[in-house]
Amino acid sequence: MTKVDSIFNGKEKKIFVTDNNQDNVIILFKDITTAFGNIKRARFAGKGRLCCAISSILLKYLNDNGVQTHFIKQTEEDEQLCRRIEIIPIEFVVRNYAAGTMAERLGLEEGLKLPNVVVDLNFNCDSLGDPMVNEDELTALGIVTAAELKGMRRTVLKVNTLLIDIFKRASIKLVDFKMEFGRASDGNIIISDEISPDTCRLWDMETNDKLDKDLFRHDLGDICEAYKKVLERLQTIKES
Amino acid sequence: MTKVDSIFNGKEKKIFVTDNNQDNVIILFKDITTAFGNIKRARFAGKGRLCCAISSILLKYLNDNGVQTHFIKQTEEDEQLCRRIEIIPIEFVVRNYAAGTMAERLGLEEGLKLPNVVVDLNFNCDSLGDPMVNEDELTALGIVTAAELKGMRRTVLKVNTLLIDIFKRASIKLVDFKMEFGRASDGNIIISDEISPDTCRLWDMETNDKLDKDLFRHDLGDICEAYKKVLERLQTIKES
Repeated sequence: MTKVDSIFNGKEKKIFVTDNNQDNVIILFKDITTAFGNIKRARFAGKGRLCCAISSILLKYLNDNGVQTHFIKQTEEDEQLCRRIEIIPIEFVVRNYAAGTMAERLGLEEGLKLPNVVVDLNFNCDSLGDPMVNEDELTALGIVTAAELKGMRRTVLKVNTLLIDIFKRASIKLVDFKMEFGRASDGNIIISDEISPDTCRLWDMETNDKLDKDLFRHDLGDICEAYKKVLERLQTIKES
Repeated sequence: MTKVDSIFNGKEKKIFVTDNNQDNVIILFKDITTAFGNIKRARFAGKGRLCCAISSILLKYLNDNGVQTHFIKQTEEDEQLCRRIEIIPIEFVVRNYAAGTMAERLGLEEGLKLPNVVVDLNFNCDSLGDPMVNEDELTALGIVTAAELKGMRRTVLKVNTLLIDIFKRASIKLVDFKMEFGRASDGNIIISDEISPDTCRLWDMETNDKLDKDLFRHDLGDICEAYKKVLERLQTIKES
């Protein structure tokens, strides 16, 4: 199986069709990191490989625990073979602690433990600045049905429980994460996103040191050093 | 029964306790109109009386149709006797057609008929600029329980059906409206808001002429003239 045409060349990923199965794609993880809607942008050598490895471990973990994702297998250090999907332009943000845009918008202190899990929804639309939306609006826009939304909410809550657990074993606090879905060729809605320190806020359980993209957003340190820590800890769990 | 102390002096209303019942208040409707979070502000002679009369008709109509509101009776041209409540700082915005902030945020044409009713939620907090919120966030903030929110949602949807109906009989299209709730002394959550062209978008059914506060927001004409039309049409229904 080889990569044929590139069908998408994004900020941080490139997607190829393969020569032997129309329903699959190869996703290449770039070394580019962007933030604040592509306003901030930099290259970190090795970042793509780190995110690919972490994401492969976590997506396999979800697959193994009954959550359908697009991930089939890691094919190269910086490449994954995945199911081809049609993107659903909704970003789910699942929050266990206040941080980021939610903390700002509601005037909450970063790191405040939330008494209940919060799921925020954004409409992925560059020209509108990826605005916050709610369920009624998403169904009115014709993007998904209310029943589909309910199913996706159930899934992200299950994923949250699973991720909290695996990260806890890695001595990492899952502050929040974002998650996107797509429609597979069989019509099923499945997770079709990376799960890595680029898409999660991860804090060291003991020190609260940030181990995620906030290091880049706020110029706080070497992101590859931190991402490597996350990968090593997850690999140790895997082997144990 | 007379007004005693003023307990609240807001932008558009003043609230007094009365001398004979701790559980009631008198609400005085001012002639002031404000928009865009008090950035735009003007005085329209007679506006308070018009809003008081329209709101009295509509709140009585809700009371008569099994929806609990704070309204007891109109006591003066610009005054209502109401139940005293503790404010719940949530604004429900119920939308049948795209307009206002939702149309802007989601890039929709004003006046687009929505395929389903949309309920938007804002957290009433001046210092944060009344941000958009969702159910999870409101429960995490400890403002209401999930069950209370569900009940309030049911209520605003019922109110929407009732208001669409009465306005239709007045040849008026209910584009959207905002609604707030409070906790009464018996613990019940009841509607405690005005319902008027200051809080609803109302368009003439035939011409789509605006008959509401958007005339003031966008300098489109005489608001009292339009509000008078709304009142007269509602009074005609009442008498028929």
